[in-house]
Amino acid sequence: MTESAIGVGLIGCGTVGGGVAKLLREQAEVYAQRTGRPIVLRRLLDKEKDRVIQSGLVDAQIVTDDVDAFFDTPDMQVVIELAGGTGAASVFVRRALEGGKHVVTANKALLAAQGAELFALARKHKVSIAFEASCGGGIPCVTALMFGLMANRIDALYGILNGTCNYILTEMTGKGKTYDKALADAQALGYAEADPTLDVNGKDTAHKLAILGSLGFGAHIALDDIPVTGVDGLDLGDIRFAAEMGYDIKLLAIAERAPGQQAVSVGVEPCFIHDDEQLAQVGGAFNALSVYGHAVGHTLYFGAGAGQMPTASAVVSDLLNIAVGWYPQGFERMKLTPDLHPPVKLADPDDLVSRHYIRINAKDEPGVIAKATGALGDQSISLSAVLQHESHDGSYVPIVIVTHLARRGDVSEAVKRIGSLDAIQGRPVVLRIVDMPA
Amino acid sequence: MTESAIGVGLIGCGTVGGGVAKLLREQAEVYAQRTGRPIVLRRLLDKEKDRVIQSGLVDAQIVTDDVDAFFDTPDMQVVIELAGGTGAASVFVRRALEGGKHVVTANKALLAAQGAELFALARKHKVSIAFEASCGGGIPCVTALMFGLMANRIDALYGILNGTCNYILTEMTGKGKTYDKALADAQALGYAEADPTLDVNGKDTAHKLAILGSLGFGAHIALDDIPVTGVDGLDLGDIRFAAEMGYDIKLLAIAERAPGQQAVSVGVEPCFIHDDEQLAQVGGAFNALSVYGHAVGHTLYFGAGAGQMPTASAVVSDLLNIAVGWYPQGFERMKLTPDLHPPVKLADPDDLVSRHYIRINAKDEPGVIAKATGALGDQSISLSAVLQHESHDGSYVPIVIVTHLARRGDVSEAVKRIGSLDAIQGRPVVLRIVDMPA
Repeated sequence: MTESAIGVGLIGCGTVGGGVAKLLREQAEVYAQRTGRPIVLRRLLDKEKDRVIQSGLVDAQIVTDDVDAFFDTPDMQVVIELAGGTGAASVFVRRALEGGKHVVTANKALLAAQGAELFALARKHKVSIAFEASCGGGIPCVTALMFGLMANRIDALYGILNGTCNYILTEMTGKGKTYDKALADAQALGYAEADPTLDVNGKDTAHKLAILGSLGFGAHIALDDIPVTGVDGLDLGDIRFAAEMGYDIKLLAIAERAPGQQAVSVGVEPCFIHDDEQLAQVGGAFNALSVYGHAVGHTLYFGAGAGQMPTASAVVSDLLNIAVGWYPQGFERMKLTPDLHPPVKLADPDDLVSRHYIRINAKDEPGVIAKATGALGDQSISLSAVLQHESHDGSYVPIVIVTHLARRGDVSEAVKRIGSLDAIQGRPVVLRIVDMPA
Repeated sequence: MTESAIGVGLIGCGTVGGGVAKLLREQAEVYAQRTGRPIVLRRLLDKEKDRVIQSGLVDAQIVTDDVDAFFDTPDMQVVIELAGGTGAASVFVRRALEGGKHVVTANKALLAAQGAELFALARKHKVSIAFEASCGGGIPCVTALMFGLMANRIDALYGILNGTCNYILTEMTGKGKTYDKALADAQALGYAEADPTLDVNGKDTAHKLAILGSLGFGAHIALDDIPVTGVDGLDLGDIRFAAEMGYDIKLLAIAERAPGQQAVSVGVEPCFIHDDEQLAQVGGAFNALSVYGHAVGHTLYFGAGAGQMPTASAVVSDLLNIAVGWYPQGFERMKLTPDLHPPVKLADPDDLVSRHYIRINAKDEPGVIAKATGALGDQSISLSAVLQHESHDGSYVPIVIVTHLARRGDVSEAVKRIGSLDAIQGRPVVLRIVDMPA
């Protein structure tokens, strides 16, 4: 069976766009064989038209910097949006959908902010949005959540979803680098953007959590409802204490439902995880997503979370699945995407029950530990460990306290009181200790 | 949009079948919401009709032990085959397909032996076969290979695909148990069948490799073409030597294509893998599949490879994806399933180039190492390590030799000569050392 070609328009020929163009050119024959129809790149829209032409990646004749010319291209059934951001990209995606074109996008910021609206718009125009590349780069974790684990009630997601942060943490942990040094190295290696703010402050991870959490829990998780702490405030000292106690610190995206509860607790923050957990083994710029389903138990998806060809792999896989025709049907019919659901009931972040790591800098004088632990005791928080090393210089000394399970609001309250003690210097550090489900 | 119900027939109400019945009953409302139509179990076929009725898992009225009555059930669009084996199950599957019913199966033996034929039969009758549960239990690795990684040329698969074997190896490695003790414990825990032959001899893993390899490499890999070595001959001594050198022994299913080569090398055997590799971290009864795609690089899928609810998760996910209607279209149109391809060109197993671990039991007398290593040198095999511990009793002593990259045929030839030396007791042990792609 040979069918008519499917026409593709590509918006944005930066790193990932270049990878997409490369795959479509080099694998044209294989893709035509796999899908039963030729996949033809009909038009490429990029502000830097000349640069794209000079790159020689695509036929110069299909390159344009004229938005209207792009959308007027005949026989273009799919638009790949790689412009990024929530401004022009949003306009492009809406115009494509309203014109009856399927959209493939890697744009997590856009989907996190406007996903429900865009999904609804796609359904209205009887087309689909495919977005595997928006989370976890080339890892087919969206496919797993949308289709592969369909029989499950998802109980928890734990993800390492930003390669820059994970690279920084891996270097701090493994090589004792400071945060600033690790970040500089990440930039030198091309893992981190020139402006790495969205990566290191956890916002990029929160975008991905909003998307994956919405899929997993079958309900809309709003970006603004996700409490976010980045890695940018992390101290090497805490990483060393973690290692001493058998833990790694990872920036985790978390969505979880306590047993028997309906409300979902969400958050992005640097967490302690025990070093024998699989997520702790995920090093460097890699990503991984742990998914706990009520029937399947623990499953994990691992791979390159960013980079030219891994991300292009996800974009082009989406494109081929649209070309075959099954994805639009799956998208239309599956009731998992967030536009078909009311907002999820989110748990109050203060109600999160977890173990916690607390570090304070205390004057090396009698009674400090008693006061600090007393403040925790007043909130009925019991402790599993207290760690104070011999002081080197006799002034301030770090004291580490590990709690048993405790309500976060209670921990915050106690820590606020501890921080106000005269004998304490600076703000206490509080990090969640995540105990993965059995 | 509410659509007509989809009717399901279930063949086999053992462990997994019971799990499927449980999910369909407990999650009926959720599944109807997700797929837009009620999923109705219309008939259950089991030889032990009375046992099933007494279990109370399903309405007694739908249980039958009459094959004709089962297939004559009206409004039954999908048949779930959980009978297992290649006898009656094959007849059931053919009858279902010929009757225009989609089939969901967990039957790796059947698909490995007759997959291409059954896939073709399904296409002929315009229905689909879904088989996520046949490999890796609940891990959606078939979904990943069929759809999620579509843009890739798959270059290699490395899988831990049998939970019984992995449990045995984990116990031998971590707790120093002998093979017999570890197997007995696996049986006591229900991981191993009363007759564990197919598990421990590697055949079950080979079934799964035939299926996953065919999908990954887009060509039919015949079961008989897969060289198989199980864990049943493994000696605790080799596991200890592995640990001493920084390796774990895992039973791996491997399909790989050397760079620039077309031929695919396949095999199932206990292998050394470096203990910092992710597959080495997969412990107990868990499964994992590493997939290397030319664009995406390394991705890994992890989860429970067997067990009632994980396997039922895969079966019911398949069922829901059929109910939605997208899977049949994906199955029909994707040119990845082996009936649409000529046999894959397999590499000669002797041409496999790898590092190897060789252990011999040698008389504790001068010149033995020289003779053994000389035999390897004669085949131009160079060595990276030789290890001999002090002898305890002065008679025979194990000597370990690690080769650099060498052709397996040459290694076998040299080892045959070494084995025939007077100073050598028993058969030398040869195990592959797998170096994962960068």
